[in-house]
Amino acid sequence: MQLAMTIDELHDFLARDFPQVAGSFEVVSVAPMQITVKLKVNDGHLRPGGTVSGPTMFGLADVSVYLAVLAMIGPKELSVTTSCAMDFMRKPAAETDLICECRLLKLGKVLAVGDALIFSEGDPKPVARANMTYSIPPKS
Amino acid sequence: MQLAMTIDELHDFLARDFPQVAGSFEVVSVAPMQITVKLKVNDGHLRPGGTVSGPTMFGLADVSVYLAVLAMIGPKELSVTTSCAMDFMRKPAAETDLICECRLLKLGKVLAVGDALIFSEGDPKPVARANMTYSIPPKS
Amino acid sequence: MQLAMTIDELHDFLARDFPQVAGSFEVVSVAPMQITVKLKVNDGHLRPGGTVSGPTMFGLADVSVYLAVLAMIGPKELSVTTSCAMDFMRKPAAETDLICECRLLKLGKVLAVGDALIFSEGDPKPVARANMTYSIPPKS
Amino acid sequence: MQLAMTIDELHDFLARDFPQVAGSFEVVSVAPMQITVKLKVNDGHLRPGGTVSGPTMFGLADVSVYLAVLAMIGPKELSVTTSCAMDFMRKPAAETDLICECRLLKLGKVLAVGDALIFSEGDPKPVARANMTYSIPPKS
Repeated sequence: MQLAMTIDELHDFLARDFPQVAGSFEVVSVAPMQITVKLKVNDGHLRPGGTVSGPTMFGLADVSVYLAVLAMIGPKELSVTTSCAMDFMRKPAAETDLICECRLLKLGKVLAVGDALIFSEGDPKPVARANMTYSIPPKS
Repeated sequence: MQLAMTIDELHDFLARDFPQVAGSFEVVSVAPMQITVKLKVNDGHLRPGGTVSGPTMFGLADVSVYLAVLAMIGPKELSVTTSCAMDFMRKPAAETDLICECRLLKLGKVLAVGDALIFSEGDPKPVARANMTYSIPPKS
Repeated sequence: MQLAMTIDELHDFLARDFPQVAGSFEVVSVAPMQITVKLKVNDGHLRPGGTVSGPTMFGLADVSVYLAVLAMIGPKELSVTTSCAMDFMRKPAAETDLICECRLLKLGKVLAVGDALIFSEGDPKPVARANMTYSIPPKS
Repeated sequence: MQLAMTIDELHDFLARDFPQVAGSFEVVSVAPMQITVKLKVNDGHLRPGGTVSGPTMFGLADVSVYLAVLAMIGPKELSVTTSCAMDFMRKPAAETDLICECRLLKLGKVLAVGDALIFSEGDPKPVARANMTYSIPPKS
């Protein structure tokens, strides 16, 4: 297995196809079947008390697994999330970037499955875990 | 079982405690153990193609189950989401409000469990389903 | 939408393809996109204290959604469960049959999604909820 | 963090409290916040074609996370599963034991969260993944 996209290509893809959110995400590292993505927290991500909101963490896990899939199969913007499950285990640290460590567990012809752990940067205890399933469009 | 909060009180709670998002949500109806919430879709909720983003749908389900719990137990802002699972089943209609129909399946002393169906307004086929678990703070 | 299989045909399918478990399940009613299945509890389903085990409840939800799909598309034994999520909300009543009320939320070409509520017979409060996704084999 | 129970004590606990299933499970290794459990597959676990059934895999993940919790907090048979999510990714190898590698992500006062990967023994590609949440009884 080898990568179909570099970090720069993943960043370019995000900027072109998801301009509303691209500025918040930074691919820290990518390797076959795994990726690490940072969420650069800003005021729009916060809930009262300075903690990152649930939808923001969902979005981070969703983008991370998506990019892990694209890194393997190339830029197919038609891949769609079909299901996810998350556990929110600890309160994220206030006003601290989040790190999402993601691995692909399956990359089939029709479905891809990945899971992710989300950390407040600098703290080894995960704040959330997620698993995501993506539907992959047929080759045309 | 009877309600601890009215629709107006739920709207006031949202406006005070979640000012960033309160303007997007409207409680359509509330009854013991169930609630219907509308997401008034704006540009910030959309992905390319005009469809509502996954994190927005997650946020809608999350707020709806939360408000269903508060409607029963009164305004306790310390309730936190502990887990969720969602299936994304159809593409939401472009630039159309979403309706979330939510029921509480359990309202225990420690945990509350609810599920939700999300529809594009006017279409009877659900675009997503969700289940959410909330941790309820002990009485002080 | 109309049914592709009757209750008798569903029972025959179970007896032929799942002989180890068929005797435990009874389809109570079936209609387009919904089914009700009873688990006739026996000693093999119980945990100490006389309560039904978690794997037994998982199996009940799994079979129910599976039969709901087959009732719509006909007997395709190649359909496979791809994902599920369950919440266990109350302890089932001791030595009491379980009733699983299931509805299909999506019946696509590739994936089917259903959810289910499980009750101890005679008690209106659900003991568990489940959602299941099935992969449907391509038409040959 | 240190262990509250040894492998032998975990096996004794299973044999005493879950005599119906204890013979199927073998704790391969245990360490703080992680455990590996083998399912010794027998005919009762199989579906037509010789593959392990979904409820059997659910049961394996459930027991594994449960034992990982007990290994940390000691034998409290009142811990109960409150929720789970699983993805079934590949067909298990026919008539082959399953290995479940489990880690605890959170061990709180009220809730414990673990995840697990299940493998057919000898094959590095996971056949299933699971996450489980347990409710922990208060100290008496």
